[in-house]
Amino acid sequence: MKRLTPRPLDADSFRPFGEVIEPDNATEIRLINNGTTTRFHDIAPVDVASGGGHALISIFRGKPFALPLDISMLERHPLGSQAFMPLDARPYLVVVAPDEGGQPGEPVAFLASGKQGVSYAKGTWHHPLISLEDMSDFLVVDRGGTGSNLVEFFLPEPVRIEAE
Amino acid sequence: MKRLTPRPLDADSFRPFGEVIEPDNATEIRLINNGTTTRFHDIAPVDVASGGGHALISIFRGKPFALPLDISMLERHPLGSQAFMPLDARPYLVVVAPDEGGQPGEPVAFLASGKQGVSYAKGTWHHPLISLEDMSDFLVVDRGGTGSNLVEFFLPEPVRIEAE
Repeated sequence: MKRLTPRPLDADSFRPFGEVIEPDNATEIRLINNGTTTRFHDIAPVDVASGGGHALISIFRGKPFALPLDISMLERHPLGSQAFMPLDARPYLVVVAPDEGGQPGEPVAFLASGKQGVSYAKGTWHHPLISLEDMSDFLVVDRGGTGSNLVEFFLPEPVRIEAE
Repeated sequence: MKRLTPRPLDADSFRPFGEVIEPDNATEIRLINNGTTTRFHDIAPVDVASGGGHALISIFRGKPFALPLDISMLERHPLGSQAFMPLDARPYLVVVAPDEGGQPGEPVAFLASGKQGVSYAKGTWHHPLISLEDMSDFLVVDRGGTGSNLVEFFLPEPVRIEAE
């Protein structure tokens, strides 16, 4: 079985798949509200207009997984981006893969800290939410509207994610 | 000077001003990802399309305020909703007012818990971010795009927000 060890999540490594949501990754930093607030502006695009879509705010509550973890499916949303921001400051796993002719290529695993969100770019292959340690809530910004926005791909062979 | 004591934030009291972002306030609850995730679906609309706008994800970092606090200005965003979700699990103050002929009417103050976000409906009069206790981060979903999306109104007399 293929084995994969998560590497720490950082914005540069993740860029082919989307954006890391953290202050360091802002397009611009503005002091607003009479100097009492710093706005880390436009960290991630919300790309949901395909097919007449609109953005939604939801909360996902994920059961925790333990490593090693065998995964056998990746999914993608062809009509919109999907952003996750942890609300319980707990780390979680992010598994993504480049697209290769309409199928996921080699998966990559990242360990996100409890202060890092991710926004999957439209059409990015990713594993569904993998919380760690305890039940964890995430704020989710994704697409509402008509149209088929979920594609699942079952891997020919499972991949084992294991701690170092 | 007018005095105002915050009341605990709840979805019903806040409805004239927008939505409280918490699981209880979801439009629909769905079990997804093979039963490992609960999706509290469509808690708050992202209403940013006016004038060709689009949604942005940013982080606001707010300096803490202490009570009593005198406020003298309310603002509104005529072209879009603006949602705040606390990322540090700390309480904060929400001050809003109904519109009365293009000006804010009587302000209302709410104490939000560190688990409650708020989405101000498009055009809702509100005070800029009021963090409490310590420097606090919030995920913000609001409008990007051209057009004039900020109106400020200076109150004829300041209002004092005080603890009970």
